[in-house]
Amino acid sequence: MTTGEFGLIERWLKPLASGFPGALGLTDDAALVECRQDSELVIAKDAIVENIHFLSDDPPMSVARKLLRTNLSDLAAMGAEPVAYLTALMLPEHVDDAWIAAFVSGLEQDQKAFGLHLIGGDITSTRGPIALSCTIIGRVPKGLAVSRSGARPGDQIWVSGHLGDAALGLRIRQGLAADEDTAMILLGRYRLPRPRVKLGQRLRDIATAMIDVSDGLVADLGHIAECSGTSAVIDAALLPISDDARDVPGAREAALSGGDDYELLFCAPPEATPTIEAIGAELELPVTRIGQVASGQGVRVFDETGTDLPLQRMGWQHR
Amino acid sequence: MTTGEFGLIERWLKPLASGFPGALGLTDDAALVECRQDSELVIAKDAIVENIHFLSDDPPMSVARKLLRTNLSDLAAMGAEPVAYLTALMLPEHVDDAWIAAFVSGLEQDQKAFGLHLIGGDITSTRGPIALSCTIIGRVPKGLAVSRSGARPGDQIWVSGHLGDAALGLRIRQGLAADEDTAMILLGRYRLPRPRVKLGQRLRDIATAMIDVSDGLVADLGHIAECSGTSAVIDAALLPISDDARDVPGAREAALSGGDDYELLFCAPPEATPTIEAIGAELELPVTRIGQVASGQGVRVFDETGTDLPLQRMGWQHR
Repeated sequence: MTTGEFGLIERWLKPLASGFPGALGLTDDAALVECRQDSELVIAKDAIVENIHFLSDDPPMSVARKLLRTNLSDLAAMGAEPVAYLTALMLPEHVDDAWIAAFVSGLEQDQKAFGLHLIGGDITSTRGPIALSCTIIGRVPKGLAVSRSGARPGDQIWVSGHLGDAALGLRIRQGLAADEDTAMILLGRYRLPRPRVKLGQRLRDIATAMIDVSDGLVADLGHIAECSGTSAVIDAALLPISDDARDVPGAREAALSGGDDYELLFCAPPEATPTIEAIGAELELPVTRIGQVASGQGVRVFDETGTDLPLQRMGWQHR
Repeated sequence: MTTGEFGLIERWLKPLASGFPGALGLTDDAALVECRQDSELVIAKDAIVENIHFLSDDPPMSVARKLLRTNLSDLAAMGAEPVAYLTALMLPEHVDDAWIAAFVSGLEQDQKAFGLHLIGGDITSTRGPIALSCTIIGRVPKGLAVSRSGARPGDQIWVSGHLGDAALGLRIRQGLAADEDTAMILLGRYRLPRPRVKLGQRLRDIATAMIDVSDGLVADLGHIAECSGTSAVIDAALLPISDDARDVPGAREAALSGGDDYELLFCAPPEATPTIEAIGAELELPVTRIGQVASGQGVRVFDETGTDLPLQRMGWQHR
């Protein structure tokens, strides 16, 4: 932590580092992370920018939690256990103590909930929008990280939770009509993803390929298919759409191509079905088989009548 | 790497990751870093913002190299060996291919020079200034990382290279008069720090405390003194001022309080003197003894006449 206002770090960030000796109280140039034999570290980094990834009037607490949770979701998709994180906060002048206090309390709440610690970072000023970067560090037994590239023809395709809620929440926020309770729930799903960290760890002996659904089901399944050198076929009738989303116009399109759900999408051989179902039951988290890996390339979606759905909109890219 | 334009990553960043298997070709959610027994990982993260830390017309290649080098300097100060880095690039619309190509070639040049690899990150858009974050990962034998907190009364205080060049370079850029050759050299020292990575590693058995000079000598020595529970006394006559800086007005003040030199400032017991001098000779890098650690607190500077210099300006803070 070389630049940045020491007072801000001392006051706001240092308490978040107190449980991790290698953070050295955030007073040093870098943090230390222990290496354990037979394990690998898993590292991801994402950035979010005001008015691109979040809105100026989003509560700072949920901005913080979303920043941490989208990164946690990257760890989940590798089957990793969370260890620590670093942040870079680029803040314009108008950001006041109340904003920072709420932001930090969001970090605090979620680092407790997910069992990790702040170990370093940077606070600096900007003359532009708020820009926030997070680097997350996890641990996985050596050789057991799940990549996107291991899917094989014959594998079944699974997804956790429900799809499309977050995209509908964003559209409601942008003006789509919905009743008030539904709007609250779906907007909550957009603002506060639920990274499937425990499920990811339980699947590391089982899944042949895994990714989190951040760009949209079809796009993210496309990444698995491309990295694995396979194709993938989805049965639209099997898509897990929540009771909240079911009656909102565009629910199926949102489930197929909406982003930001941060559910786990994974492939596994058919014989793993009972184990996967048992894990879902134990974690009280629905896991749904939605299709199959095949040879060839690309992603196809069939509807109830066996008709190939056109996939113009393959998911969102934020730039 | 969950958001960001895949095309940009594929085209510009992927080649920087080709030498590191755990980067998984930048196609996955996270990267893998091997754990080695008896070692620790050292992790630092910094962010720089256009018009705060660099200027809009700075060459993108030197912006990239400075980003990487300031982070490398954090590793150097811990005595760590560089392993890998991640970047988050937040780019406004007007940033074109030529800018990105030059930026990436700066990263490429320096990752080769310092022996590390890009293993992940994010490219996203912003409606504000260019904002860049770098997370760097190094390795150090277990228990040998050098912190800021081990200085003891009686230790001698050393610094590598020369002090004040970078601050004078910035002031010349801002309008301070200097002859053309001097201006070029000092501006180069501001734009392109030389992280003392090899020296840092050689000092990990020797230095009791170490930091890189980024905020200014007095400020950074103050961090060591505070973390170590000691005071520090500098003899201004011993400050290593370069031949280029010597005749520029304000050279001594720049050496004391200018930032951005990224030299290593370290403490060691007097009996280590011959070893330190031998290491400096071997690396062809001047190392200069400038003072002594004492009991008490704070930093004092004496001039040639033994007079205590007033230290109004204790260094720069970037926010």
